[in-house]
Amino acid sequence: MTNTTVLYQHGTLALLVPGLLAGTLTMGELLQHGDTGIGTGEGLDGELIILDGTPYQVDSAGRVNVVADAFTLPFANSHFAAYKPLMTVIAATRSAVEKQILATAEQPNIFFSVKLTGTFTDVTTRAVAKSQPPYDSLAETARHQSIFKRKQVEGTLLSYYAPQLFDGVAVGGFHHHFLSADHDFGGHLLEFGQASGTVMIQTFATLEQHFPVADAAYQHHDFSQDNIMADLHQAEG
Amino acid sequence: MTNTTVLYQHGTLALLVPGLLAGTLTMGELLQHGDTGIGTGEGLDGELIILDGTPYQVDSAGRVNVVADAFTLPFANSHFAAYKPLMTVIAATRSAVEKQILATAEQPNIFFSVKLTGTFTDVTTRAVAKSQPPYDSLAETARHQSIFKRKQVEGTLLSYYAPQLFDGVAVGGFHHHFLSADHDFGGHLLEFGQASGTVMIQTFATLEQHFPVADAAYQHHDFSQDNIMADLHQAEG
Repeated sequence: MTNTTVLYQHGTLALLVPGLLAGTLTMGELLQHGDTGIGTGEGLDGELIILDGTPYQVDSAGRVNVVADAFTLPFANSHFAAYKPLMTVIAATRSAVEKQILATAEQPNIFFSVKLTGTFTDVTTRAVAKSQPPYDSLAETARHQSIFKRKQVEGTLLSYYAPQLFDGVAVGGFHHHFLSADHDFGGHLLEFGQASGTVMIQTFATLEQHFPVADAAYQHHDFSQDNIMADLHQAEG
Repeated sequence: MTNTTVLYQHGTLALLVPGLLAGTLTMGELLQHGDTGIGTGEGLDGELIILDGTPYQVDSAGRVNVVADAFTLPFANSHFAAYKPLMTVIAATRSAVEKQILATAEQPNIFFSVKLTGTFTDVTTRAVAKSQPPYDSLAETARHQSIFKRKQVEGTLLSYYAPQLFDGVAVGGFHHHFLSADHDFGGHLLEFGQASGTVMIQTFATLEQHFPVADAAYQHHDFSQDNIMADLHQAEG
């Protein structure tokens, strides 16, 4: 069943804040819900990006690995790709690209995905290093992240947009992951200088929000003691 | 396909705040996602409660009507019932019932439904009066609600619990609708004195959040100008 109007999400962004980082879904299961997606591994083991059914992991050493079906994740999104052309951008900054997408799509209150394929300058990405149980909080883990830079690179920016009401469930606004065309550079996108290429969009009628119901640590955690929004905006901003 | 681990939701609670009250889903469509549920009609036309596949509306005159498949709703929940016994309560206040459910279920971070069937004292419900386009905001509409009271009544309390992270998407915490056993009294529950009866629970692994994607007013609305949380807690508290 490949419903292209459904965005699947496992876990919530918020559960990363107190370090509920057990891998509660396998990549094999995630791929049943889509051929395109993003996520992170157990213990915040790198940055995942799924393109055309292949799950790539950018680890904290900057290596790009294809992960096995048994690889587990605490948080991930996937969907079946059915993108439509939205616009072309030429030497556009990240901020300009985001504004143009929102102005063109005019759909700030639903989830959608965009894929920008082209040439990027001054790309900065990050990948987090895997922590072991007892897991670090997101704020602690973020201190051990690696930063990677490329002056100019061809590649694909895969992004999800979430309405602000869902900030904390997902990243409110845009959440970008990047993979180079040569599959040798990528990660969670922090910034780029300028992008030139094609922007495709896919809108979703439904968010299929799946919870890690078998994970006792998640089920019993008291989130009221966490600074969810402050820590997320610090780490994902 | 009757997956009893899925809670379906159409619309968000937040969209009621600025008065985005067009009926964007039919009752017939809602019933395809469950035989049990709650909701409100177009223009906040009463309080809906679906039990065993029958959709009852408590209107602002206090009448209980069975609505047709063509009846439309801006916001609703439904699921296929597969409740399990949780506990028995005897002369328990609403606050005590809610605390006992949370203490017994120990699942504050996932969505679940409870059904309390028994005898209730001092029940207070409300039902909102339907507004016409251009629709009133939730705060304005709430001023025109009707309040109903019963000293003692047998009936069913149908409740959904949402994790606090989803406050605004749904009602964070418990959201209760009531229907009397005689089908002559009900609505959105504001308070009861004491309840004696059986509490059943059904937990959900997935929230299937569906958006009114065909509604231009929803798609283009600027929610950043609304006091979503303050108005919701005023109206739904």
